[in-house]
Amino acid sequence: MAIPGFADTPAAHYYAVIFSGQRTEGDNGYGKMAELMIKTAKQQPGCLGVEAARNPDGFGVTVAYFTDEPAIAAWRDHIQHRGAQKLGKERWYAHYEVRVARVERSYSGPANR
Amino acid sequence: MAIPGFADTPAAHYYAVIFSGQRTEGDNGYGKMAELMIKTAKQQPGCLGVEAARNPDGFGVTVAYFTDEPAIAAWRDHIQHRGAQKLGKERWYAHYEVRVARVERSYSGPANR
Repeated sequence: MAIPGFADTPAAHYYAVIFSGQRTEGDNGYGKMAELMIKTAKQQPGCLGVEAARNPDGFGVTVAYFTDEPAIAAWRDHIQHRGAQKLGKERWYAHYEVRVARVERSYSGPANR
Repeated sequence: MAIPGFADTPAAHYYAVIFSGQRTEGDNGYGKMAELMIKTAKQQPGCLGVEAARNPDGFGVTVAYFTDEPAIAAWRDHIQHRGAQKLGKERWYAHYEVRVARVERSYSGPANR
């Protein structure tokens, strides 16, 4: 069952791309692009969903889930995503970390709904 | 170099515990406990850091990084954390997902600082 805000991921194994970033001051077109990129990512083959949150001080964590490494590589090289990455480096992020991880197991709650 | 808000993680491999959760209405003691749990987690042997963000609608993503599986198990079973987990199920979360993942590689930007 898909629950708003959550990625509807299968049983392990699959992959998580963890993007944590500190935004620069001001929007500078970020909000519109972020919304578009999340929408576009979710439409890519092998994308299992995206979960994202941001603090009022501009620190955010976005996790995109993928079936496998080729799906991650395809999204990394997606032409629109490449454009967003460039602007992210130039304008939107003071610092970011990207970690690619293989999900080993998962559980949910409060009652495994 | 430790940058505020970011976990100062080493080269892969290490582990990420990705906790995404939708909060219930109201604080009900959550804020104080969340702060204490992040502080306590960071002091555990094998914990490499914690990154956390929450949207105004109560959806949040917290990622805790650990050296290995035994360190994850020790934090899961930590007595104070067990108490917080119980309250999380009873009071604080409408829904949550926990995913344990092995970090395969990482990079940072905008300029690998």
